[in-house]
Amino acid sequence: MTNSHENRLKRLARAQRESGMDLLAVVPGANLRYLTGLDMHSSERITLALFPLGGQPVFVLPGLEAPRAEARQGIESSFYTYTDEQGPAIAFRQVASDLQLEGKVFGVENLRMRVFELRQLEQHAPDARFVDADPLLSGLRIVKDKEEIEALRRAAEVNEECFRQMAARIQPGVTELELAAVWQRAALGSENAALSDLPLIVASGPNGASPHGIASSRRIQSGDLVTIDAFLLVDGYYSDITRTYAVGEPDEELKRIYSVVQKANAAARAIIKPGIEAQEVDRAARQVIDKAGYGEYFIHRTGHGMGLEIHEEPNIVEGNDLLLKQGMVFTVEPGIYVPGLGGVRIEDNVLVTETGCETLTTLPRELARL
Amino acid sequence: MTNSHENRLKRLARAQRESGMDLLAVVPGANLRYLTGLDMHSSERITLALFPLGGQPVFVLPGLEAPRAEARQGIESSFYTYTDEQGPAIAFRQVASDLQLEGKVFGVENLRMRVFELRQLEQHAPDARFVDADPLLSGLRIVKDKEEIEALRRAAEVNEECFRQMAARIQPGVTELELAAVWQRAALGSENAALSDLPLIVASGPNGASPHGIASSRRIQSGDLVTIDAFLLVDGYYSDITRTYAVGEPDEELKRIYSVVQKANAAARAIIKPGIEAQEVDRAARQVIDKAGYGEYFIHRTGHGMGLEIHEEPNIVEGNDLLLKQGMVFTVEPGIYVPGLGGVRIEDNVLVTETGCETLTTLPRELARL
Repeated sequence: MTNSHENRLKRLARAQRESGMDLLAVVPGANLRYLTGLDMHSSERITLALFPLGGQPVFVLPGLEAPRAEARQGIESSFYTYTDEQGPAIAFRQVASDLQLEGKVFGVENLRMRVFELRQLEQHAPDARFVDADPLLSGLRIVKDKEEIEALRRAAEVNEECFRQMAARIQPGVTELELAAVWQRAALGSENAALSDLPLIVASGPNGASPHGIASSRRIQSGDLVTIDAFLLVDGYYSDITRTYAVGEPDEELKRIYSVVQKANAAARAIIKPGIEAQEVDRAARQVIDKAGYGEYFIHRTGHGMGLEIHEEPNIVEGNDLLLKQGMVFTVEPGIYVPGLGGVRIEDNVLVTETGCETLTTLPRELARL
Repeated sequence: MTNSHENRLKRLARAQRESGMDLLAVVPGANLRYLTGLDMHSSERITLALFPLGGQPVFVLPGLEAPRAEARQGIESSFYTYTDEQGPAIAFRQVASDLQLEGKVFGVENLRMRVFELRQLEQHAPDARFVDADPLLSGLRIVKDKEEIEALRRAAEVNEECFRQMAARIQPGVTELELAAVWQRAALGSENAALSDLPLIVASGPNGASPHGIASSRRIQSGDLVTIDAFLLVDGYYSDITRTYAVGEPDEELKRIYSVVQKANAAARAIIKPGIEAQEVDRAARQVIDKAGYGEYFIHRTGHGMGLEIHEEPNIVEGNDLLLKQGMVFTVEPGIYVPGLGGVRIEDNVLVTETGCETLTTLPRELARL
């Protein structure tokens, strides 16, 4: 618990009041870390935090997690624990009676809460109403504060150093999995860096036609493009970077595609500033690719917000008219994927500044021939 | 898709028929891998598989994941894809019409499906009923087949080798985090091994009093006990091992505690055989600890099943009268945690055999003084 957590709880209370949310129910994960600093995990043992409007937070958690939770907790709060033998029902009945849960309006994290937790709440809070709290929570988190930006900046730096170590090993004969292992070892050797649980993307040659191609045992060949998309956390904040490298001399169409993606990436970053709509960034990238005739092969949005989670708001997609603000951080990652031929993606991390944007990632965007 | 997947889908259909479940809805994760071999991930882009009784599986997934899913898919199935711009509503409307979802009985994974996916189904399948499919699914998965047992055996071997490399580095002055990094680097260097997304437990000295104490910057001191609980996957299957080491000469009470836990672990493993109840294994360990006067400090169940997930059935806990069967695999991990003093846990992985049990883990259980 730090000053920033206290601030966040105040902003939460204000948002709850405005939206008529009696209680916010939060499961382990990014929102709980954001609000309290507590890093818990979800399992078949239920762990749930309740933030009642105008009251102190309440935690229902397994007894064996209590020491860890208490050690990191500096806010006034109540703990309701249970043992493996008891199960959580007694704890929930006590909470339901102490907080008078019946008929209340609960905000829940639709994108994170499991049916398991929802059913527990439904059972112990009869006639309650459950509304999606994700928009409220992402509204709290979408503009990053100074410390968060510092962490995002460091994450990008560490990730780039891992890319450099890996790029030095790209050559014919090495497998995608071996390249992934080089990056992972570099990341593990970096102080404060933690690996994400998502598998690294290393997609070479024809595999590059799949935007989410996981590293395989395929050996790199001369003439391949190799797309690498890697993510790590520093102090709990993500970096998510993609670069595409050439091994030897790729064919003419792949080089043309690379140059189109490079221009699309630059065009999108060039227009970012406070006050424009998120979808305008997507359009800026898409226009370049459409015009070059590859529109049907750019099969995903241009980017996504990033912070405590690898994908968060703002969503850089057609249809999102959200206005960009100073302090938002997101990816710009146009790509072209041609089945049978291969693919290219160039992904940077950007911070919206007072007058434009700062690109946090600095790895070269010119096609490197290895 | 292999023969074993075909078999599993047949067993699933039989179980669905018996329980009157019209459709099973499965999100990315262990159950999807078990049934189809597909390793997808959950995000804000919905991915959902439907297994209609008597029909072929149906996948709703983002277009950009389709190449990956198709490449690994050998069963007859239908794909309903959507783009980032469209969102999933059109795809779901089509599925609802093709499969006539209205009023159907859906099995859902309460422990895995998010409110996000549940709401989508509720919206597109009016008057449907949602029942918890976790018992049915864990019933399918609880007895491991030959290939699964081989993978669990290899996972234990790789994990033990990582423990040996780490144990060689335990000495006064080294931090818990440094020990965690040694284990992680050893795991990353092992072919086919993958790290779990859960943080390693390294709990030294007084930190050992927390069963789930995450590795910290605390330096190991002479006289400490150090409890290390580490998990990894080989070919998708878990190993989960704990050992407690002594650095120098620990005090008399800690040595007594160690010897009690060692006896509890042995007593539990000694009684395992087909036909006894899961709770009897818990009682065998608990009796030893109760009798020694430490009952109140053994604050968790004796063990949990293990396979594609680190925690699955059978739950080795008081109250579980499930009969053990040949082919079940679970942990035996009694522990004693004394606030202010420290703790001990010794965790093995066991396989129920025709006449008893085989302990897959072979690291010494005598107190090692480093």
